[in-house]
Amino acid sequence: MAAKNLHLLSAKGFRAAGVYAGIKTKATPDVGLLVADRPVAAAAVFTTNKVFAAPVAIGRRHVAGGRLRGVVVNAGNANACTGRRGERDAISMCKLAAEVAGGDPHEFLPSSTGIIGHLLPMVKVEAGIRAAAERLGDSHQHALEFAAAILTTDTKRKAAAAQFRVGKDVVTLAGVCKGSGMIGPRMALPERGGLKGLHATMLAYLTTDAAIPAATLRKIFGVSCDASFNAVTVDDHTSTNDTACILASGASGARIDSAKAVKSFTAALDEVCQSLAYQIAADGEGATKVVRIEVRNAKDDAAARAISRAIANSPLVKCAMHGNDPNWGRIVSAAGLAGVAFEPERCALTLQGTPVFRAGQPLKFSAAAVSKALARPEVHVVLDCRMGKAAYTVWTCDLSKDYVTINADYHT
Amino acid sequence: MAAKNLHLLSAKGFRAAGVYAGIKTKATPDVGLLVADRPVAAAAVFTTNKVFAAPVAIGRRHVAGGRLRGVVVNAGNANACTGRRGERDAISMCKLAAEVAGGDPHEFLPSSTGIIGHLLPMVKVEAGIRAAAERLGDSHQHALEFAAAILTTDTKRKAAAAQFRVGKDVVTLAGVCKGSGMIGPRMALPERGGLKGLHATMLAYLTTDAAIPAATLRKIFGVSCDASFNAVTVDDHTSTNDTACILASGASGARIDSAKAVKSFTAALDEVCQSLAYQIAADGEGATKVVRIEVRNAKDDAAARAISRAIANSPLVKCAMHGNDPNWGRIVSAAGLAGVAFEPERCALTLQGTPVFRAGQPLKFSAAAVSKALARPEVHVVLDCRMGKAAYTVWTCDLSKDYVTINADYHT
Repeated sequence: MAAKNLHLLSAKGFRAAGVYAGIKTKATPDVGLLVADRPVAAAAVFTTNKVFAAPVAIGRRHVAGGRLRGVVVNAGNANACTGRRGERDAISMCKLAAEVAGGDPHEFLPSSTGIIGHLLPMVKVEAGIRAAAERLGDSHQHALEFAAAILTTDTKRKAAAAQFRVGKDVVTLAGVCKGSGMIGPRMALPERGGLKGLHATMLAYLTTDAAIPAATLRKIFGVSCDASFNAVTVDDHTSTNDTACILASGASGARIDSAKAVKSFTAALDEVCQSLAYQIAADGEGATKVVRIEVRNAKDDAAARAISRAIANSPLVKCAMHGNDPNWGRIVSAAGLAGVAFEPERCALTLQGTPVFRAGQPLKFSAAAVSKALARPEVHVVLDCRMGKAAYTVWTCDLSKDYVTINADYHT
Repeated sequence: MAAKNLHLLSAKGFRAAGVYAGIKTKATPDVGLLVADRPVAAAAVFTTNKVFAAPVAIGRRHVAGGRLRGVVVNAGNANACTGRRGERDAISMCKLAAEVAGGDPHEFLPSSTGIIGHLLPMVKVEAGIRAAAERLGDSHQHALEFAAAILTTDTKRKAAAAQFRVGKDVVTLAGVCKGSGMIGPRMALPERGGLKGLHATMLAYLTTDAAIPAATLRKIFGVSCDASFNAVTVDDHTSTNDTACILASGASGARIDSAKAVKSFTAALDEVCQSLAYQIAADGEGATKVVRIEVRNAKDDAAARAISRAIANSPLVKCAMHGNDPNWGRIVSAAGLAGVAFEPERCALTLQGTPVFRAGQPLKFSAAAVSKALARPEVHVVLDCRMGKAAYTVWTCDLSKDYVTINADYHT
């Protein structure tokens, strides 16, 4: 069950804060702390980019044991491509967080997002961490401040929450995330070679007051992230910093130890992750609409993923969506270039429910009516491959002139 | 040797024409004929997209024997995703071309470019072919008309030529091409599974008056296309119609039968194909500059290709280039997401000759000076991977608001 008025700190056992430390040009929060009352079960997935930021390197190590005390994060500077000095800075962030908020330095997961290749302004970062520690609290306002502290080119905060019951106990599961550009996450659990997902910096932090063993949490979280965050693409550019982390305090008293409880927990986690992922697509840089690419009956899983991503990442498809242009040939041709099994003679394509192409033949349809339907805030493209039983859905957005404006002048 | 005043019909033994038949909205030529005086040695490469247009299906068959009489082409309609009717229309184009220009229908290679999923307006196409046949000639003007008849969103005609000597004989090798959007060619000889190249519709037609066996021509042409047309990307969208074809009349009397002659021929072919490929990148939809991505010392050939393409196809890199923004982190991170061997701790990156990143560390440089250098009409990015000996160069262009304007409103 989803519920209003829930927020990141509705899950019992956590406090958070976000403050402006002067790292971003714009005076909105840029340093955040999320802290559990004690070390708790934790799991995280990280970018599979071979160029990964210092906080990712440190975070992988710190989460390896399945327990964390909290998260320390800054926006405005990615601390990526910064060499040894970058790693020392990420460790310093954890040390200071532990000093001022409690716990051991290796119980903190550090995160950064922003421009690549610049050293962190540590005087500002450290002042920010100290200020955040002084403000820690568990109100909705605190959750909002933390959610704001992780944003860069995002135009809005992103949050989601769900609750479910295990016996008499109510469990809360909540999360916040950021992501707008450099979005094509392909995140994986630290030791895996790489889930085959997509790519921004996207950051996501989830809390729950369920009592769940770290090993179980890890397994469920990996799968849930793959079907949510890894299924979003704005520009297919896997970031150096992508990170999603969940902390489970156990403070609700509800144990996730039965098949039924695991099922409820998984459903709530999927709901929260997918809501957050959807919000990233909707707030993609320059986006005016969400485009949901659903591939059905592909030959196999790899084909379903490759075809849906090839369509979602085609600049020609994204521009057509922006212009409400029912130019479906771009969609079919994108499916054909994915390098996997696909036969245009078998497939069927619908745009907003209107069949436009089937069995190798163009269908007659009202271009004006479909164009009008494409102007809605959500576009639904369904490609039925008729070759097997595999399905996959990718969320993306349209490509507008604003994307160019935002990205042609981010740095200088 | 390259020479001015050379054109497609400087190679002896060919005639051409281009006429406006009313297929394109804009009143510029849209039907072209290129005809040899007799059946000649020929080779062609075609798109590897699993969704390929009817003229590609027919062209593969017609060129299989290594001999062609000519090429019949229209712009404004791709004749792709048009089913059996589409194939019949492509065959009709060849039949009519043979009837009015001489030869057998199966000696003609048909090509189409334009919107996907619309049936060819055959009354117009047939009137165009008849009109073109009446105008056939071998002057520079005829070459210009044919070059114009293959264009769609291109802003200019594209042509290149070279000459070399075999003994006392002068051999001419010339070509024209089109390509501006839906450019990411991955073309291969008809029976191959797929050269691993990139993707527009791009069309290229080359002529030579060398006397060369079809088997030799085929082999050399495949390699030359892979290092030229297949190394260009505008939007990485492999078209349904990509085709490059060469006709060798033998009319110069020069036989390409010695190692030295093959070497001269190959060098001239590479020069012409690379010039044409460069012109496609320079005229990419909305492009304001050419960006040359050179990857050196990659672990192997596949890594060099994958890294150079990942960089060239990143919308973030292309927007940064548009904004003259030395935001090199986007380049390094694109290399890291290519899914092949790459270690940022080893690599060295230069922008317009200025080192910006080396061995995992950002380097100090003048952002203002590099930004000024990036404003030139050609940008040169060199990434030295220091992991092996493989190299690859991709030509692309920047991503501007004009790309969005052109592609958000092409159809309706």
